[in-house]
Amino acid sequence: MSRSGRRPGWPQTRDDILLAARRSFGARGYDATSLRSIAKQADVDPALLVHYFGTKEALFLAALEVTMSPMSMFDGLATVSISEAATLIVRRYLLMLDQERTRDVMLGLVRSAVSSERAATMLREFLGQAMLSSLSPLIDHPDRQLRASLVAAQLIGIAMLRHVVKADAVASASNEELVSRVAPVIEAYLR
Amino acid sequence: MSRSGRRPGWPQTRDDILLAARRSFGARGYDATSLRSIAKQADVDPALLVHYFGTKEALFLAALEVTMSPMSMFDGLATVSISEAATLIVRRYLLMLDQERTRDVMLGLVRSAVSSERAATMLREFLGQAMLSSLSPLIDHPDRQLRASLVAAQLIGIAMLRHVVKADAVASASNEELVSRVAPVIEAYLR
Repeated sequence: MSRSGRRPGWPQTRDDILLAARRSFGARGYDATSLRSIAKQADVDPALLVHYFGTKEALFLAALEVTMSPMSMFDGLATVSISEAATLIVRRYLLMLDQERTRDVMLGLVRSAVSSERAATMLREFLGQAMLSSLSPLIDHPDRQLRASLVAAQLIGIAMLRHVVKADAVASASNEELVSRVAPVIEAYLR
Repeated sequence: MSRSGRRPGWPQTRDDILLAARRSFGARGYDATSLRSIAKQADVDPALLVHYFGTKEALFLAALEVTMSPMSMFDGLATVSISEAATLIVRRYLLMLDQERTRDVMLGLVRSAVSSERAATMLREFLGQAMLSSLSPLIDHPDRQLRASLVAAQLIGIAMLRHVVKADAVASASNEELVSRVAPVIEAYLR
């Protein structure tokens, strides 16, 4: 089957679009990416993107969900101790960042958020839905939203120093070294 | 005295350049800002910028130092308890972020770092010099660099959630609410 020409929409088309979207958003950020450029990279008609996803914003969120959900960072945390939950969160997060494509999309989102009000809003929604709503039920405190957000702040800051700024100590530490330092702090927020 | 025309270099010229640099880097980031555009905003000859600062990189670092050093985030920390030091670090940092111009320059640096390898290198140097070298002597551990970096990661993440993403719980919390939640975590890293 030829990869060239516009394809009418067989099964993997939706996945192709998502893959192209992840690449484009990851490489260039939200604002600099257009539905048209994603359609071109996926080799499909732009109308198909609208058909499947509606808007650029919706496509961005779908690409994020595809990127993050396979990691299931928060699966099964309600059934383990708080200390184990903290360890699992940090370990799974670092494994997620180890994957280049996932990391690119996450950093693309951060890159977009610092330069675009709309992307910042989406990051806020994404954190609220995907992360804070999974995390806050684990916290038995009236200020669980604040505590869950501070966990997110710690994790986002680690991604910044490890993969963007590449601060020596954080960039060269092994995952398990980081887990041993950071998990007690996450535990303190959850407790 | 007229503000128009090129001025030859009387005393406040260097300060004018620094002010223009802070505005430009803060608003547009490192890559999108040129020495020429800063000279235009400061209403001076571009050659004066080269005379005073040498390169764009050096001017950026000078603008950062001017922005951050008046806050003296780390002054006097060696003479108080670790618990007090942690509280002071968080409180001073939040006060610093309360100042719009300082916040703009810091977020401009973060914005630059996620899209420019050179700006990321500068943020790494700045963190290494201004922050980690002030922080790590407070830490009586062989892994003090890693611990100091994780403190920086937590603080950078808070700026992201409070001022970029504007996550509800972090954006609406008072400084002292944040101090009471975050200082114990900073203390755990310092101890």
